[in-house]
Amino acid sequence: MADSRFLRACRRERTDTTPVWLMRQAGRYLPEYRAIRARASLLDICNRAELAAEVTLQPVRRLGVDAAIIFADILLPVVSMGIRLEFAAGEGPVIRDPVRTSEAVARLRRPETEEIAPAIYNAIRLVRRELGGKVPVIGFAGAPFTVASYLIEGGSSRHYLETKRFMFSEPRAWDALMDTLADVTTRYLRAQVAAGAQTVQLFDSWAGALSPLDYQERVLPWVKRIVTRLRPLGVPVILFGTGTAGFLQVLAASGADVISVDWRVRLADAWAAIGPERAIQGNLDPAVLFAPRREIARQVRTILEQAGGRPGHIFNLGHGVLPETPAENVCYLVDLVHELGAASTAAGNEEQAAVDGITGER
Amino acid sequence: MADSRFLRACRRERTDTTPVWLMRQAGRYLPEYRAIRARASLLDICNRAELAAEVTLQPVRRLGVDAAIIFADILLPVVSMGIRLEFAAGEGPVIRDPVRTSEAVARLRRPETEEIAPAIYNAIRLVRRELGGKVPVIGFAGAPFTVASYLIEGGSSRHYLETKRFMFSEPRAWDALMDTLADVTTRYLRAQVAAGAQTVQLFDSWAGALSPLDYQERVLPWVKRIVTRLRPLGVPVILFGTGTAGFLQVLAASGADVISVDWRVRLADAWAAIGPERAIQGNLDPAVLFAPRREIARQVRTILEQAGGRPGHIFNLGHGVLPETPAENVCYLVDLVHELGAASTAAGNEEQAAVDGITGER
Repeated sequence: MADSRFLRACRRERTDTTPVWLMRQAGRYLPEYRAIRARASLLDICNRAELAAEVTLQPVRRLGVDAAIIFADILLPVVSMGIRLEFAAGEGPVIRDPVRTSEAVARLRRPETEEIAPAIYNAIRLVRRELGGKVPVIGFAGAPFTVASYLIEGGSSRHYLETKRFMFSEPRAWDALMDTLADVTTRYLRAQVAAGAQTVQLFDSWAGALSPLDYQERVLPWVKRIVTRLRPLGVPVILFGTGTAGFLQVLAASGADVISVDWRVRLADAWAAIGPERAIQGNLDPAVLFAPRREIARQVRTILEQAGGRPGHIFNLGHGVLPETPAENVCYLVDLVHELGAASTAAGNEEQAAVDGITGER
Repeated sequence: MADSRFLRACRRERTDTTPVWLMRQAGRYLPEYRAIRARASLLDICNRAELAAEVTLQPVRRLGVDAAIIFADILLPVVSMGIRLEFAAGEGPVIRDPVRTSEAVARLRRPETEEIAPAIYNAIRLVRRELGGKVPVIGFAGAPFTVASYLIEGGSSRHYLETKRFMFSEPRAWDALMDTLADVTTRYLRAQVAAGAQTVQLFDSWAGALSPLDYQERVLPWVKRIVTRLRPLGVPVILFGTGTAGFLQVLAASGADVISVDWRVRLADAWAAIGPERAIQGNLDPAVLFAPRREIARQVRTILEQAGGRPGHIFNLGHGVLPETPAENVCYLVDLVHELGAASTAAGNEEQAAVDGITGER
């Protein structure tokens, strides 16, 4: 299993082809997922291990992706922190009592590990058993800034105005909030690894709302703390954000093993920014999956060319699969990456071998 | 007037201090603007030259900014192309019959110059007269991609899915749409310059929704065409976008004199990417205007430090002033830029003089 294509790529080791998985690979674009959602809410699925395990496995069966990401929502842990979380139809998450004062921050609970999202731990165990070593399991959590943005805004946001106002105006309360979220997130991810997750991804999805300086000063220390505390577990950590083209070096400074980038930057430029010591994940625009196949192929080829077959590229989208995506195009994408990636990594491996020969490394 | 601080900076000439103006400096955050909006709709103001001129002048009087940007909406020209445009309360622009087929593209009118938005031309004349040379007037238009995104989506969008689907699936119709929009935009901006605009800004606000490659291949040629055709008029062209940290070099290839960047990139990194042959505009996060003054000052100082007092920096926000912004903080910002910019440009001018002495340039 440590020899799986995906885990090898996380460690920047050579692979037979480019590994690929997709954010939100379990989701509404799949008829088998919609069938389950017809009888269970999002929170129902997250709270029932067998359902969460089932939807986690659906895309592995249909797509042949190289990793299974456990089905969950990044806001699950906040329920155990005393927050009332709802999912309004078509609206996304809703938090009726947003956290906007230092008092509200102080009131947040620091749950014990077993309280955070126990069904998810069980789902990971079920998925591991069911997969029988076929592909690794990715655990995940929201990163402190992104989770904080939901807590403060009370839901999705366009300008993150309340979040930023709070961050700028109440620096101590902000730090206390980040501190709490970093600790809960660390516990949650440790427990996921204990349950069997072989990689974890931190979703700092809305990182790109901030300036590089604000991220560096007010967010990065907490991401770094989480990464550092997970380090002894020996599982790769992936750090994901969107709109981060301008501060990839800051993200790389988190110490994460893999940086996941969106389509708003050339993969080659992004890899140059994060440096050769990190693996990279990305970066197809999810909207390309609505395009004709010749266009999908063209864009996949461009990304693979930019990766140059160098060990350490994990193919993914730049953000999640969109709900209306044609499922057959998603299948096509995964097959195509495997097919084109084989030639690309073979060339890259040869080049790497030549470099290794010169430098005497590896 | 050609010697104004703002126009000199557009040409990368030395100035006494850093020029500053703000996108949406005329807007809801100003009580005097709200007083006019209480009796006139957005389209009323745009269609009545004296009202448009009045709201254009309001921020010049209150803030002491270094340029007046004519009050208008980037979608005004589409009305003359046969599109029914409405502004629903709180919803932004609404286009009931979105343009999603090649037939719909073919039906778009190519209006004569005088049909496009005649009140805006008159408003520019009024503003020029009223200002009496105090500060220059900036004309503007939406860039083809951003206007196309509204036409295709039917309004604002999150994922620009219909726009991208159209772009990927109907490349000929897409080119025809870009061609039409580029021509109408060129006519519109030429007429604004004829009426007295001393600079024009192209708002490609949603450019950052695209990958660098898609922008380069499917959008840049049309932006370039507009810039090239405006070149003989001798006025500086500013190209603005958000989320463009990953493709600033592509934007610079448009030939625009000034590239306007948002806060998602360090100004110093952005300037390095666009090169020393272009001026740069930006890049404070509009949300910082909700912060305590010590924080505003800290962020302004950081941006000025990154600009290093080099000729060619125009201070601005990374996007428009948000409606709920405290007006007194906006005044504070403008004064602060002028105050701190004086020291900064003095140092930068000295450095530049030393460089010029060595290279014998200028």
